[in-house]
Amino acid sequence: MKPADLIQTLNWRYATKKFDPARKIPADLWDTLEQALVLTPSSFGLQPWKFIVVTDPAVKAKLRAVSWGQPQVEDCSHLVVFTARRNMRSEDIDHYVKRIAEVRDVPEASLSGYADMMKGSIIQGPLSKMVESWTARQAYIALGNFMTCAAALGVDTCPMEGLDPGQYDEILGLVGTDYHTLAICPAGYRSQEDAYAKLAKVRFPKEQVIRYV
Amino acid sequence: MKPADLIQTLNWRYATKKFDPARKIPADLWDTLEQALVLTPSSFGLQPWKFIVVTDPAVKAKLRAVSWGQPQVEDCSHLVVFTARRNMRSEDIDHYVKRIAEVRDVPEASLSGYADMMKGSIIQGPLSKMVESWTARQAYIALGNFMTCAAALGVDTCPMEGLDPGQYDEILGLVGTDYHTLAICPAGYRSQEDAYAKLAKVRFPKEQVIRYV
Repeated sequence: MKPADLIQTLNWRYATKKFDPARKIPADLWDTLEQALVLTPSSFGLQPWKFIVVTDPAVKAKLRAVSWGQPQVEDCSHLVVFTARRNMRSEDIDHYVKRIAEVRDVPEASLSGYADMMKGSIIQGPLSKMVESWTARQAYIALGNFMTCAAALGVDTCPMEGLDPGQYDEILGLVGTDYHTLAICPAGYRSQEDAYAKLAKVRFPKEQVIRYV
Repeated sequence: MKPADLIQTLNWRYATKKFDPARKIPADLWDTLEQALVLTPSSFGLQPWKFIVVTDPAVKAKLRAVSWGQPQVEDCSHLVVFTARRNMRSEDIDHYVKRIAEVRDVPEASLSGYADMMKGSIIQGPLSKMVESWTARQAYIALGNFMTCAAALGVDTCPMEGLDPGQYDEILGLVGTDYHTLAICPAGYRSQEDAYAKLAKVRFPKEQVIRYV
């Protein structure tokens, strides 16, 4: 991608407040965005998340009601709910190590040092005291990646934290599972009537957010 | 960007373990990546972060020593330290509102409802109980955005949490400030000798991380 095209893409992106409810993301384009979610990097590669893609109008309506009534939830094409693990168990790390062995066609035993290192950090070590906060951060890498990838494909998004996570968990059947709701990101196409699309993007001057050492 | 090019870009990206220390990111390309950082979306648009760009070899060497000795910290072209606010005060929200008024050329008074809503949520409301965790999540949106943008421009990165944040704060003069270190991301160009570049990417099958509703 050319630098100028990247900057244009990032400037084109904005938190879409009004989606065109008639325009749906074509299946092949959506599939690309799902692949982008799957390919998101994470700490140790552990992927401590699940992405729930909601397109059922009845469920969207229920979720809108617990999202301060915001219309993006219903009017978007695909609603992505970003959830992360509440916990990390030894078995979860073993499950991941099995997957490495499978994908790279190496014996599991050859990965035991890596498994022990992860367990040392996540199950017994410093991360064990902040697992929920740490898994949430990973899910936000996915959120950042998703918005940028969507913009690169000409798809609009609206990151949202204004929702009742407990009610989301209830509606999506997450209560009692290892996952909980963090944030959502409706995706689709902006309505031509969305006045927010025309507003200048507000960022602090570069000198206020970047320091050189 | 074409869908196939996006997927190729995301597959090309990997956590670079060995950078070519001789190759530096050209100034204009780096400027684009700084703009990408600045343009990162955040909750309410509040940008509760600072990005510290380290290129001084002496500082890089000190930071490597508190990053489990990992060579990426020294061998990369530009090291980005992702920091986030420890707190959010009423004045910080006022500062942001002033910036909105300035960029959009509207009277500050016209934004008082928005300011009150943010203060209600962040200073008095539910977010006040989790400010550090919430600002950290925002910084990870920036991390996700940064890695994807870098890959789109053919720049390699390596997201890293394996470091002593307290020591980073000490070395970078953050102790006693409003910001603290969360994670780092060396950027530059992969060494042709990095065996990790050739390993298959390990992701769980899509069916295990994406659910449809």
